Amino acid sequence: MSTLISPRVLKGFRDFLPADEEPRKRLQRSLEDTFSSFGFVPIDTPVLEYTEVLLGKGGGETDKQVYRFRDHGDRDVALRFDLTVPFARYMAAHLNELYLPFKRYHIAKVWRGENTQKGRYREFTQCDFDIVGVDSAEADFEILLMMQTSLKTLGVDDFTIRLSHRGVFNQFLEKRGIRDESEKVLRAVDKLAKVGAEKVREMLREFATPETAEAILDFIQPEESFGATLEKMERLSGGKSEGSRRLAQIRELLEATGLSAHFRLDPSITRGLDYYTGLVYETFLNDQARIGSVCSGGRYNNLASLYTKQELPGVGSSIGLDRLLAALEERQEREAAATGTKVLIINMDEALKGHYFKLSRELRQQGVACEIYPETRKLKHQFAFAEKKGIPGALFCGSDEYAAGTVTLKNLTTRESREGVARQAAAETIRDFIG
Amino acid sequence: MSTLISPRVLKGFRDFLPADEEPRKRLQRSLEDTFSSFGFVPIDTPVLEYTEVLLGKGGGETDKQVYRFRDHGDRDVALRFDLTVPFARYMAAHLNELYLPFKRYHIAKVWRGENTQKGRYREFTQCDFDIVGVDSAEADFEILLMMQTSLKTLGVDDFTIRLSHRGVFNQFLEKRGIRDESEKVLRAVDKLAKVGAEKVREMLREFATPETAEAILDFIQPEESFGATLEKMERLSGGKSEGSRRLAQIRELLEATGLSAHFRLDPSITRGLDYYTGLVYETFLNDQARIGSVCSGGRYNNLASLYTKQELPGVGSSIGLDRLLAALEERQEREAAATGTKVLIINMDEALKGHYFKLSRELRQQGVACEIYPETRKLKHQFAFAEKKGIPGALFCGSDEYAAGTVTLKNLTTRESREGVARQAAAETIRDFIG
Repeated sequence: MSTLISPRVLKGFRDFLPADEEPRKRLQRSLEDTFSSFGFVPIDTPVLEYTEVLLGKGGGETDKQVYRFRDHGDRDVALRFDLTVPFARYMAAHLNELYLPFKRYHIAKVWRGENTQKGRYREFTQCDFDIVGVDSAEADFEILLMMQTSLKTLGVDDFTIRLSHRGVFNQFLEKRGIRDESEKVLRAVDKLAKVGAEKVREMLREFATPETAEAILDFIQPEESFGATLEKMERLSGGKSEGSRRLAQIRELLEATGLSAHFRLDPSITRGLDYYTGLVYETFLNDQARIGSVCSGGRYNNLASLYTKQELPGVGSSIGLDRLLAALEERQEREAAATGTKVLIINMDEALKGHYFKLSRELRQQGVACEIYPETRKLKHQFAFAEKKGIPGALFCGSDEYAAGTVTLKNLTTRESREGVARQAAAETIRDFIG
Repeated sequence: MSTLISPRVLKGFRDFLPADEEPRKRLQRSLEDTFSSFGFVPIDTPVLEYTEVLLGKGGGETDKQVYRFRDHGDRDVALRFDLTVPFARYMAAHLNELYLPFKRYHIAKVWRGENTQKGRYREFTQCDFDIVGVDSAEADFEILLMMQTSLKTLGVDDFTIRLSHRGVFNQFLEKRGIRDESEKVLRAVDKLAKVGAEKVREMLREFATPETAEAILDFIQPEESFGATLEKMERLSGGKSEGSRRLAQIRELLEATGLSAHFRLDPSITRGLDYYTGLVYETFLNDQARIGSVCSGGRYNNLASLYTKQELPGVGSSIGLDRLLAALEERQEREAAATGTKVLIINMDEALKGHYFKLSRELRQQGVACEIYPETRKLKHQFAFAEKKGIPGALFCGSDEYAAGTVTLKNLTTRESREGVARQAAAETIRDFIG
């Protein structure tokens, strides 16, 4: 006899129990339904790619977080660490088979060997959606509208999408003569929500004059209204520009659709060092702002320049599915039932097994999810099973009921019973009586 | 300027275009809905596991097909190559948090570095479902019934689930005194469908007497009916046994539920060298038998003996999702449309952008998937886009229509138009007129 192997998982990786996996599947379906109603189509790409494709020709050495190895054919391969790079490769590879503008979504796992001490996982799910091949206010707004609709459809009402424009920010830096320091400025400003204005001021003073530091802090401070903030951004960045005009168009579309309440122009939103060039945005649940943005993104100039000469401007967003799910679970009472089963058919009489299966088929055909306890066993075991699994109802059929063409239904929450229910009326009675 | 990186994927790996990924998602949803109606719950496990967990303590060296490497922490890790081994580990790890009998499904990708010359993929999707913790005819039958229901729900009517019992087969070998050669027998019998009886006879003669070879060939030959085959199996294996009684129970349940037509007792089904101990089965689409079994499985004694001392008998099945999808696509005309979008809102008037977004929201709220062409552009480009994407309808609203509170709808297949449709009636008209 060999010794047992410990059934452990790798650090930073997780098993999902049914009580975790069911809400995750529901969330994913809800998002997919919304995306589909906007004409977004699903794609998929390999989990494993050439390292060169994922990291570019030189950058490999610094990417310590990437799971990288040599495969059987001695190829240098890696697990994808996001869904953006594979999408860029995908667009370059399939331009001839696709059409532009192309609107896709992709919900899939990615892997990063992050430090797990920060509570981060090494395997997690991303949900990305993009419109590629067009640079227009409509495309920008469609992404914003889809974010808004996705959250509403999930039952979330109290959220704010904070947006700004990287082009306007860059013009402001240009005007202040610190465009060369923009990386440092972005890095400092990106920390505002986390560390506060005083700390950001300190960071800015490391490379900027006190006047410039104050000017930056002033610029990123939103005013009361979208209009007032936009007016200030224009003034401080040297007047109207393509970027500020785009923001004005977004404002018009928000007003036309009556959605202004969910959106806020906030010049402190920059998305850090990301590759965005136009609109940028983050989404906060108002009463759970501490968990951070649940959906972020922006407009970029050129998605696939590593792989093709064709310019592919785009706009897109990414939802952190784990984070959004955690937020949703905090909001509502976690559902007791991790199953969709409405009724357990009690397996009480060996001779009636075939009849139980017939009943189960009739119930399912009428839309009632049900299951038969898979062996004839004492009732207490069958009830204990229903309770552990969170099944709300039980159906009994002994020989008397079988002869009479009836069943007995029991609501396991209220402990009430209905006897002598005609077999044909069982599905309807379950809906009324059990839920 | 650096040179471009080739946007290629690894050999044996695939990108999924929307026209491939949409049917895949629909298939997965249909299966999940059926599973859920039987009380099966979803789980998920990590893609990456300790190699020891996946391959056992010794067996590592021979498993050349497994993607195995050392991670950042110098751990010996591997990508899962099936969903059974991770499920066994999962059950051992979470026995205290779960309940028995436990019914789970798991749809996920697995990886094997197979020889791609055989047309095999190195990344593919499996769909497994099992009932663990009980050994009963009801559990066996529930898996069979769920397979039958899953196919019916997908619109497949003409299929046969061929089943047998490994226990009865082993008794037969015992009776013929060749139990020690059972691996060789199984390997030969498993080839029957592929190579024919004559070739199997040759293989058997390599280690068995001519009489024994003929006896095996006789045993695996099904009779006309379930009853006659069962009678023969009992006779040739030394009389009634636990295994043959289980087959008789399955037959009773098939008759009670009126499902006999889809099932056939076929003693040549053995599932080769797999670890099954009881019922075994394979599923063939009658007019596409050459593609092989689309759903196979059986009963096993002990799922998780590598990881726990608790005995976990079970019964389960695996659907080869790629194979089933290919079969379904062969059967029906591939749908032209790879999108759910019903109507493209033509972007024809800059001043009406906000109105277009309002219309899009109204339509979606009434269940009509729609999209706005994301910039104002010549009509021919917008029509070309609709055609490439397979969108069946277009909605026009110029300034006259806007003033009148109407829209014009065009069926892009029939080229017919409906003018002056009241905005409130647009959704209904789209359903009637476009589909």
